[in-house]
Amino acid sequence: MSSTDIEEVRNKQVILRDYVYGFPKESDMHVGDSKIKLKVPEGSSAVLVKNLYLSCDPYQRTRMKKIEDGGRIVSFTPGSPLTGFGVAKVLDSGHANFKEGDLVWGLTGWEEYSLINSTESLFKIQHTDVPLSYYTGLLGMPGLTAYVGFYEVASPKKGEYVFVSAASGAVGQLVGQFAKLLGCYVVGSAGSKEKVDLLKNKFGFDEAFNYKEEQDLVAALKRYFPEGIDIYFENVGGKTLDAVLLNMRDHGRIAVCGMISQYNLDEFEGIKNLIHIIYKRVLVQGFSVTDYYHLYPKFLEFVLPQIREGKIVYVEDTAEGLENGPAALVGLFSGRNVGKQVIVVAHE
Amino acid sequence: MSSTDIEEVRNKQVILRDYVYGFPKESDMHVGDSKIKLKVPEGSSAVLVKNLYLSCDPYQRTRMKKIEDGGRIVSFTPGSPLTGFGVAKVLDSGHANFKEGDLVWGLTGWEEYSLINSTESLFKIQHTDVPLSYYTGLLGMPGLTAYVGFYEVASPKKGEYVFVSAASGAVGQLVGQFAKLLGCYVVGSAGSKEKVDLLKNKFGFDEAFNYKEEQDLVAALKRYFPEGIDIYFENVGGKTLDAVLLNMRDHGRIAVCGMISQYNLDEFEGIKNLIHIIYKRVLVQGFSVTDYYHLYPKFLEFVLPQIREGKIVYVEDTAEGLENGPAALVGLFSGRNVGKQVIVVAHE
Repeated sequence: MSSTDIEEVRNKQVILRDYVYGFPKESDMHVGDSKIKLKVPEGSSAVLVKNLYLSCDPYQRTRMKKIEDGGRIVSFTPGSPLTGFGVAKVLDSGHANFKEGDLVWGLTGWEEYSLINSTESLFKIQHTDVPLSYYTGLLGMPGLTAYVGFYEVASPKKGEYVFVSAASGAVGQLVGQFAKLLGCYVVGSAGSKEKVDLLKNKFGFDEAFNYKEEQDLVAALKRYFPEGIDIYFENVGGKTLDAVLLNMRDHGRIAVCGMISQYNLDEFEGIKNLIHIIYKRVLVQGFSVTDYYHLYPKFLEFVLPQIREGKIVYVEDTAEGLENGPAALVGLFSGRNVGKQVIVVAHE
Repeated sequence: MSSTDIEEVRNKQVILRDYVYGFPKESDMHVGDSKIKLKVPEGSSAVLVKNLYLSCDPYQRTRMKKIEDGGRIVSFTPGSPLTGFGVAKVLDSGHANFKEGDLVWGLTGWEEYSLINSTESLFKIQHTDVPLSYYTGLLGMPGLTAYVGFYEVASPKKGEYVFVSAASGAVGQLVGQFAKLLGCYVVGSAGSKEKVDLLKNKFGFDEAFNYKEEQDLVAALKRYFPEGIDIYFENVGGKTLDAVLLNMRDHGRIAVCGMISQYNLDEFEGIKNLIHIIYKRVLVQGFSVTDYYHLYPKFLEFVLPQIREGKIVYVEDTAEGLENGPAALVGLFSGRNVGKQVIVVAHE
């Protein structure tokens, strides 16, 4: 059967209308219909997938604006569907590593079906005794991010004082649990009482606080860290970072994963206390999970038994249906989500 | 002879009047007379020295203000002489490692004679075929700072693009020469035409510019680094740092040695482009030479032959007499000095 004979099916998509400035709104995206053939073009090494779960991640905000020189980070294309991490089922494959029926996670489109040409960021899912959606979070990009950011970038030692911001998020909740497993003292900040309760009662943080209720973040950190902070896992930037800099210990480390408080600003906030990295000989390391994919098998080996034994738990916030994708994504920036924000596109 | 019988001699001193805020002035210090016995008290393990050269260093500005929590950095004591690095001759010693006649460099007082109780930061000078004053700079604290900041902190590789600010200063001029020796491309910034000429014609920088003549530092850096910056050796902070952040390459490194542009400000300037350390996975490392004194012998072994062969040169700016100490120190902050600022207290 030649590809021209194959029937096209409807393909619902979440499309970016135009570059976004300021706080993103649901109306910056629209849900539209396209057509797609459920076959890989002849001779191509692409993979055709049915998307099951999509991941809402803060870094996607950056891709919504026109980026002049963001290194490896490239803008979304207005008029086209968003892309991001997701879990999908292979319907057809021109690539030797993937075959029909395989479950995969990696970079895909915000649509029902995607033709994936760049298979180098696609991982075959081998373990299905855990929730499939975990491969958008705990067992996917955010999980590996937490793992490498904490263990590789922050060089943690037992007994050290660890602070995590956006601590109930997709990455933060894991950093805190990893730190506890290693025997660190861990404090997290989050933006609601519900999240603070989760940090203390579900994820086992030693302490947690609602940053919105603190008039003076410097004083709050001094209260929780009278001896200072050895490791700061940075997810938010801005005022929190400035307050942390005044509370670091000698030879402290700041693993810079994200700065969500800055993504919607036209002009970034100025950080005033950087001079303290000289006084305290602090290391500040920006990192990206994309440099650490080779550690994914090692990460799985570490984390899967912990999940099975209940030593690592994970909280997801699930939106049903692609239609609810825009609201779910936008909600990250007001902190509406509790835990990892996932979109269910289809239940297999 | 009991110590009570020993005659006291006059001891000229540079004394801090009070904590300093804003731009330091000569009148923040005064030159006064004290008395001192040129003998170590009986039973003490201190060393009594005659100071020959004193070093003017930007970090001393920080010690002029009241520091609440500067880690290892402690304030000077108003009403007492300043302290700092210097070259001195031992007149009497209660310590087994030092004897009368020894030449030493390390932490001493801004005065003619000093009783040094903390001998752990005193190094015996073994090589006198080079100018003695070099032990305040090239062969002292600033030299070791340049060496460890470049080779240990910045992890340089041949062919990399290196930017140095305050590049004609005590540390900067060496960083540039070390980078050239390794085969890097090096650009320096400084604050006058004379200094820019020195960088290009004496120290062998590939390019140099006067930051005071650049309207747009971001554009200037793009001009000199069309491919971006691999290593930034940070001596100034503020606007220069912000412009550098926009010009870093993937996996770039910023060795943070000092931020002289900020030392006289009541409130530090805000740095707005830190988010680029995520995009480019940049390492920002604050460091202090005090953590690297164990490398001093290795440094000497490396640098002495280079000096003798004329492969490393050093420019000093010399003030004669303790009376001229306050003006020399204050001059660092207006960039009056050309090269390493030294005060000659006595010619042996």
